Amino acid sequence: MNAVPRKVAVIGLGIMGLPMAVNLLKAGHPVTGFNRSQGKIDQLVSAGGVGASGTAEAVKDADVIITMVPDSPDIEAVVSGPDGVFANARKGAYWVDCSTIRPDVSVQLAAAARKAGIKALDAPVSGGETGAIEGNLSIMVGGETADVEAVRPVLEAIGSTVVHVGPSGSGQTVKATNQLIVAGTIELLAEALVFLEAHSVDTQAAIKVLAGGLAGSRVLDRKAASMIARKFEPGFRVDLHHKDLGIVTAAAREAGVAIPLGAMAAQLMGAVRAQGHGSLDHSALMLLVERLSGRSAS
Amino acid sequence: MNAVPRKVAVIGLGIMGLPMAVNLLKAGHPVTGFNRSQGKIDQLVSAGGVGASGTAEAVKDADVIITMVPDSPDIEAVVSGPDGVFANARKGAYWVDCSTIRPDVSVQLAAAARKAGIKALDAPVSGGETGAIEGNLSIMVGGETADVEAVRPVLEAIGSTVVHVGPSGSGQTVKATNQLIVAGTIELLAEALVFLEAHSVDTQAAIKVLAGGLAGSRVLDRKAASMIARKFEPGFRVDLHHKDLGIVTAAAREAGVAIPLGAMAAQLMGAVRAQGHGSLDHSALMLLVERLSGRSAS
Repeated sequence: MNAVPRKVAVIGLGIMGLPMAVNLLKAGHPVTGFNRSQGKIDQLVSAGGVGASGTAEAVKDADVIITMVPDSPDIEAVVSGPDGVFANARKGAYWVDCSTIRPDVSVQLAAAARKAGIKALDAPVSGGETGAIEGNLSIMVGGETADVEAVRPVLEAIGSTVVHVGPSGSGQTVKATNQLIVAGTIELLAEALVFLEAHSVDTQAAIKVLAGGLAGSRVLDRKAASMIARKFEPGFRVDLHHKDLGIVTAAAREAGVAIPLGAMAAQLMGAVRAQGHGSLDHSALMLLVERLSGRSAS
Repeated sequence: MNAVPRKVAVIGLGIMGLPMAVNLLKAGHPVTGFNRSQGKIDQLVSAGGVGASGTAEAVKDADVIITMVPDSPDIEAVVSGPDGVFANARKGAYWVDCSTIRPDVSVQLAAAARKAGIKALDAPVSGGETGAIEGNLSIMVGGETADVEAVRPVLEAIGSTVVHVGPSGSGQTVKATNQLIVAGTIELLAEALVFLEAHSVDTQAAIKVLAGGLAGSRVLDRKAASMIARKFEPGFRVDLHHKDLGIVTAAAREAGVAIPLGAMAAQLMGAVRAQGHGSLDHSALMLLVERLSGRSAS
């Protein structure tokens, strides 16, 4: 990587944030990080980063501040208050929120950032833990064009597809559709696999031929084998996808758009969670299809 | 292609069958074809094939008989009766049905073929008109292993992915899941696109970034641009996909498998058809999402 080094702060060193921070370090950017649990900070330090005692210390000298937290209330807590990003970042710094949150909250927070003299982008990602580790996330960016281009070299250290999709909030809107499509595609694959198993078809052979035709998808490539093996370690947890589908259905309602399959997928994800599988990978939708079909082992 | 030439008969020279026959000719196999409309036979002859006056004449000297017709009753008509495949094919010939029909009918017809001394395979395809023209169809084959291997060189002239998925009928079962996944994936994409348009997001940019992440699919790659442009020329007609989804839902019922998203997709495909769009491409599901969302031009 030949990008000009930028001082980067990363707030939220979880399943996604930590490998993203590590890839920023690998690309030559100094990274200061903060996380609520010290263990993750220690892992960042082991990788060559600097640990901070709080958000304020992490962001005070940063050129680019990346936040990666689970939900809208979490990000509001990180940016607001006396220890928050807005009160402590340099004027002119870039705040890039990679969290998946409600588009309307994203728009409000970007406006608040601008009032504090901070440039704001929403930049949620797709590609999961594997994409975060491999540095080939898809990043959907909302905000001003000049700001997107200014931080592009930094984003390209963590993602292979970095696309400016519109003004503030647009990144979150596109991420919402990503989550709609992914949930629905996993559910369709789960239904297909249970159907094939019920008909005693060779599912491995079936997957190979399905992948070669119009039914092929990244979900099929990445999830089918583990679903057949009933391995549901996350990956991306049902709890988080359930949260995201709440965003999708609310945003569709607000826009007056009917999303019959997306809404059904949201219901099914909620049902998987209600059955106690919230901490499994979202491909655990298959457990629900099995249960609905009387083919559940449990 | 270096395959040993086999005398091939192709019954059904439609949107799929004709380009498949042409690719067989290109691979060096002599092809005799029959179709109800003479125009298609003339096109086959122009490409170097031989036209027949009926099924009986087409199949009488063939090593391999390929049928490609729309539905279960059509194939029953082609194979049965004094002018049909079973009464006229050589003993030991291979009958390869590339039509998409009910798995149970496929099993019955294969048994009838064996009684007539004919080796039967079900070999439905995925990849659409483009795949048929380019010779890179995905072919899901049900039947005896030895029979599959015997005709594999012929199938490889029309498809790039040829997979033996199980005994007679298995090809149709896998094709049913293919059609479930494809219909659902198109509908999810349609919902996503209408959602993005309602939020005034740059759909071209959004597609680029969605394609790079876990939401990526062959449907998105092949259909998104034409859906955004509202171009719905087939391709694969709503009428045919509606027929296929009837097969899927019936087969799921028989196996006691719940397919909530597949069943919803079947309902929506039926609704698009009921609104008079049966002859459009299946991506016309988008017209229904628009109508449900009050965003229809008409």
